[in-house]
Amino acid sequence: MIKQYEIQLPAFKRGFHLITDLIMNEIPSLPETGLIHIFIQHTSAALTINENADRDVRVDFESWMDKAVKENEPYYTHTTEGQDDMPAHIKSALMGSSVSIPVMKGKLNMGTWQGIYLCEFRDHGGKRKLVVTLIE
Amino acid sequence: MIKQYEIQLPAFKRGFHLITDLIMNEIPSLPETGLIHIFIQHTSAALTINENADRDVRVDFESWMDKAVKENEPYYTHTTEGQDDMPAHIKSALMGSSVSIPVMKGKLNMGTWQGIYLCEFRDHGGKRKLVVTLIE
Amino acid sequence: MIKQYEIQLPAFKRGFHLITDLIMNEIPSLPETGLIHIFIQHTSAALTINENADRDVRVDFESWMDKAVKENEPYYTHTTEGQDDMPAHIKSALMGSSVSIPVMKGKLNMGTWQGIYLCEFRDHGGKRKLVVTLIE
Repeated sequence: MIKQYEIQLPAFKRGFHLITDLIMNEIPSLPETGLIHIFIQHTSAALTINENADRDVRVDFESWMDKAVKENEPYYTHTTEGQDDMPAHIKSALMGSSVSIPVMKGKLNMGTWQGIYLCEFRDHGGKRKLVVTLIE
Repeated sequence: MIKQYEIQLPAFKRGFHLITDLIMNEIPSLPETGLIHIFIQHTSAALTINENADRDVRVDFESWMDKAVKENEPYYTHTTEGQDDMPAHIKSALMGSSVSIPVMKGKLNMGTWQGIYLCEFRDHGGKRKLVVTLIE
Repeated sequence: MIKQYEIQLPAFKRGFHLITDLIMNEIPSLPETGLIHIFIQHTSAALTINENADRDVRVDFESWMDKAVKENEPYYTHTTEGQDDMPAHIKSALMGSSVSIPVMKGKLNMGTWQGIYLCEFRDHGGKRKLVVTLIE
């Protein structure tokens, strides 16, 4: 049995943001046993799972990512949508467009320190749309 | 309910290629509500989701990737299968061996600008095999 | 129908390790047709799928990764948990916290050369926990 929900996130600034609670608040209930799949409908933002405790981790994620995928590389040919656009596409593919998490006893069966990140790679990405699919 | 299809892609040259239509043409129908999972049975090619409009994006993906994971690194020990082989393994893991996309009203519930990419990392990768799993 | 199993891996040393058999030995049986989803409950280790034959591939994976995500970057702010910690978080997100593989005729429907890797990014990561979800 499959249930699906579309969620519109508020606009976040460029960076990595913990959105576990924000997503869970939009889901009426989780299955007893199953899988939750969360998909982002964009190509310049991404989802990943990482540490939910220390905010510094999310700051360092952005620093590393900005150095690994630089703006204004002389070899970029896709430049008409702004200097943050092509790097955002590459970063999105590196992080991925979806996460999937086991559900057990009606709860996300993640580790204690895991949370869901929105990775916003545009300077002004605006409101991002997610599709949540519950499989039970 | 699960349905599964095996697809053989035609050989693509090294680079990033939009294959959404190619895959969809091989699937008799999508479920009303569900999830599609697409898996590549290779370790030197990958799947990802990114911009489906401007071909320049796919060109820049390859340029960035070739600089991030260089051929002929002096520390590579796995060198017997060609200079494009070890980099192809690393690139494949960075992009991922599968994508999964929500299905709603019998259609892929992706964003307007999203498409499925085959990431071909070998110079002569040949025909690649995919396994498509539909969950409804 | 969904089945779920929790697996505790033995401690592995830092590096990339082939764990396909280790996981399969913990699963009573695979569905005739379905999907297996394997999730790691940690943010400094990851799962990926890559070559199962030559051990050199796994050695080169670690060498590349250690150069791509360096320890002791001067801009890291999350430094209290050891010099291997923040790089481990970034590497984990690059590789991913789950893999999902089609199941056909009661077997993993992977390519001949594919295997499941545990990517252990900490010097002393200890025993890692996985959650395996079978969808049929």
